[in-house]
Amino acid sequence: MTEQLTLYSYWRSSAAYRVRIGLNLKGLPYRTVPVHLVRDGGQQHAEAYRQLNPQELVPVLMHGDRVMRQSVAILEYLDETWPSPPLLPAASRDRQRARAIAQVLACDIHPLNNLRVLQYFDRTWSVPQPEREEWVRHWVAEGFAAIETMLTDHPSTGVFCEGDIPGLADCCLIPQMYNARRFAVDLTPYPTLVRVEQACLALPEFDAARPENQPDAPAPEPAPA
Amino acid sequence: MTEQLTLYSYWRSSAAYRVRIGLNLKGLPYRTVPVHLVRDGGQQHAEAYRQLNPQELVPVLMHGDRVMRQSVAILEYLDETWPSPPLLPAASRDRQRARAIAQVLACDIHPLNNLRVLQYFDRTWSVPQPEREEWVRHWVAEGFAAIETMLTDHPSTGVFCEGDIPGLADCCLIPQMYNARRFAVDLTPYPTLVRVEQACLALPEFDAARPENQPDAPAPEPAPA
Repeated sequence: MTEQLTLYSYWRSSAAYRVRIGLNLKGLPYRTVPVHLVRDGGQQHAEAYRQLNPQELVPVLMHGDRVMRQSVAILEYLDETWPSPPLLPAASRDRQRARAIAQVLACDIHPLNNLRVLQYFDRTWSVPQPEREEWVRHWVAEGFAAIETMLTDHPSTGVFCEGDIPGLADCCLIPQMYNARRFAVDLTPYPTLVRVEQACLALPEFDAARPENQPDAPAPEPAPA
Repeated sequence: MTEQLTLYSYWRSSAAYRVRIGLNLKGLPYRTVPVHLVRDGGQQHAEAYRQLNPQELVPVLMHGDRVMRQSVAILEYLDETWPSPPLLPAASRDRQRARAIAQVLACDIHPLNNLRVLQYFDRTWSVPQPEREEWVRHWVAEGFAAIETMLTDHPSTGVFCEGDIPGLADCCLIPQMYNARRFAVDLTPYPTLVRVEQACLALPEFDAARPENQPDAPAPEPAPA
């Protein structure tokens, strides 16, 4: 496996964040190519990037000359290609549950709150920013409430969403927690999610994947004198 | 495998439609329990159904006493539990591509156009119906254009999205084509999608899964005298 891994990423994209966690959990070194989602009218819309991803979204992962799109499908590829440590549990019923949690996050929260959707509201319907932010919080709350129930009701919840090994569901949860804090979502109704987040962020694989630790993250504000 | 399969379904739900196709492709008999998404204020919000799915969405598949949510995660379970005929190709790179196409449909088109989203626009922002329908068409067009490119540019596109066996991507595509027609999306820019749709709908497994062939579909309008 000497073929290089290259991730087209944006520091604050939650879909790219998922893949960064997955790569780190697998112990795979990779090169980052930043794609700035706002600068230059959105670098993801540039012709060269469209050749990599006709959806004009991040991330894209290149493995050698292989072009891979869609973060959850990329994580499945990583798990099939480098099985250890696993991102999914062994038993099919547990795999189904882990994937279902991941899909709640990847299908039913994140795409609704994505940059392009908020831009649509602004440009097409002139929805004021406070109402756009209320929209974001609404869908986070709907999804988080469901996942909190799925976790508290189930015996296979462990230190992480599924058992005691961080995996696919955690790769999807942690970026969404970051996004929730960014939009000032009240997290007190989701104590299990907060507990899992703390366990994840204590691990170096998650820490290295944090938005603020990316090469394209803006420099931190200088401390007041 | 004598445990019964029970699908909580709504005839016009595209997520339930995906699972119906998958069950039929695997040759698995199942029992349908209709959940009417509008009647009674939405039967998916009833307490008994919330016990099955805290997301209050269809579908849910029961396999014996196992409760499974999220259509794509359910399709993965079907493929792991009954491997033949396969819903995913053998090689990891091809599996990645098939899953990526499925995720474009399941993450980046369908959740944006779901009933609950259109209800939010109506109830919270009073967005008029023509603008709500324009929104639906916008995201279908964005996603379909990307998939059309992904299919026309790639040598492993066959009779179906991935090769010559109908699979996961087709399970997700066909319901979204149905939805696109329902909202009068112009499909002429997507000749490959239309070709794949025709190939799929010629198969009895897809035909039996069509919305109008479900037990909870309304009776067809009587022909004019």
